[in-house]
Amino acid sequence: MEPVLFYGVPHGCSFGSIVALEWLGQPYRLHRIDMTAKHSRTFARVNPLGQTPAMVTEDGGTLTESLAILHNIAARDLDNGLGFAQGSKEFDRLNWMLSHLHTTLHSDLGYGWNAFKLVEDDDAGRNMLRKMAREKAAMDFAFLQRVLENSEWLIGDHRTVADAYFIGIARWGSDLDLFDMASEFPGIHKHMQKLEADPAVIFAHAIEEEREAVSLGGFRGHATVEELEPRIAA
Amino acid sequence: MEPVLFYGVPHGCSFGSIVALEWLGQPYRLHRIDMTAKHSRTFARVNPLGQTPAMVTEDGGTLTESLAILHNIAARDLDNGLGFAQGSKEFDRLNWMLSHLHTTLHSDLGYGWNAFKLVEDDDAGRNMLRKMAREKAAMDFAFLQRVLENSEWLIGDHRTVADAYFIGIARWGSDLDLFDMASEFPGIHKHMQKLEADPAVIFAHAIEEEREAVSLGGFRGHATVEELEPRIAA
Repeated sequence: MEPVLFYGVPHGCSFGSIVALEWLGQPYRLHRIDMTAKHSRTFARVNPLGQTPAMVTEDGGTLTESLAILHNIAARDLDNGLGFAQGSKEFDRLNWMLSHLHTTLHSDLGYGWNAFKLVEDDDAGRNMLRKMAREKAAMDFAFLQRVLENSEWLIGDHRTVADAYFIGIARWGSDLDLFDMASEFPGIHKHMQKLEADPAVIFAHAIEEEREAVSLGGFRGHATVEELEPRIAA
Repeated sequence: MEPVLFYGVPHGCSFGSIVALEWLGQPYRLHRIDMTAKHSRTFARVNPLGQTPAMVTEDGGTLTESLAILHNIAARDLDNGLGFAQGSKEFDRLNWMLSHLHTTLHSDLGYGWNAFKLVEDDDAGRNMLRKMAREKAAMDFAFLQRVLENSEWLIGDHRTVADAYFIGIARWGSDLDLFDMASEFPGIHKHMQKLEADPAVIFAHAIEEEREAVSLGGFRGHATVEELEPRIAA
């Protein structure tokens, strides 16, 4: 079977991996995980930590963590330009940007997600976490905005897996009601708008929202638990 | 000039990059940054965000973010085994582990570091952040401990940049007084003890503490601001 990506809803950071697979253009399938529901035994086998994205590869192996999945997707066709050859300056720069997105922006917005997990009457705790999320993520968005001042894309002159991941998590700035992105970070907003017009991003939204989704070519449908179960390596 | 690594004290996560450079064995230099002091104009040029590690490469280019620097070090000699060839299963697995260490463990212990930054009388805030750090990092350490149950090293059968990074940040569990590592996570403690006996780790501690440091061979001394300034690309 084609590689199968397990994506999570709502607000999944797996969104970026769907976009990257669309840009890659090679056959793949999807498997939907409702992050608010009880998880299947199959998903527990693929990722005991219960996080998306997760991938079942062609040989039944499993791979988790966005960073690893994006590198895997990019390495499937370096000529496509989603990634760069190991050891090159551009490879360094891609890792630098992926680290900023994963280790910094994702983590800092995480303070905002954690605010939701507090008990209902802990307003002081919630306010503190939201304030930290806002202060930290504001620095991250300002940094990324400076990068985009001199560049059409996050790395150099064409789209990469970094842009795919970016569009999946930058939306959290408004999803969490932390920022008015258009007025506070117009450069970030502009890059988001450009990506929102991309057919792969339009496709990923349609998938998340269970609307009719038009693939650029690679999507081979959703894989069921029954199809997946016998393929996952012990 | 050889590549120059800017490392931070105290408690720098740059520690892992020093260990990786020692294991690589190729010529390199260091530049010390006291994270509690005012930073030099030179360091501001290398990393406007003021974070370590940062690297000035042979051609005067700059590279920041542990993840990118570790990938850069590994790619300098894949035969050394600190990393793996792009596109391989092992490369996927290395990225998976680096992501767990950077995006998860580093970020979760970060809740503990942020507790220190609160105003002095905010005991409720500090307690909440420390509790979150403890709960989150406990899950991360438990996960890593399960990995180490079946493996001598974090990835497969030999040391990699993942182990180098691990030893630089796992110490924060006790530095932050969150855990008694030996009793709470004996498997993590055992891996830390093994690494603490490694000459490269002993060297990195001596460097951080400004004691006499015996290199495995690659270290060519500290580079001064005067040596660095003309070499950094505009």
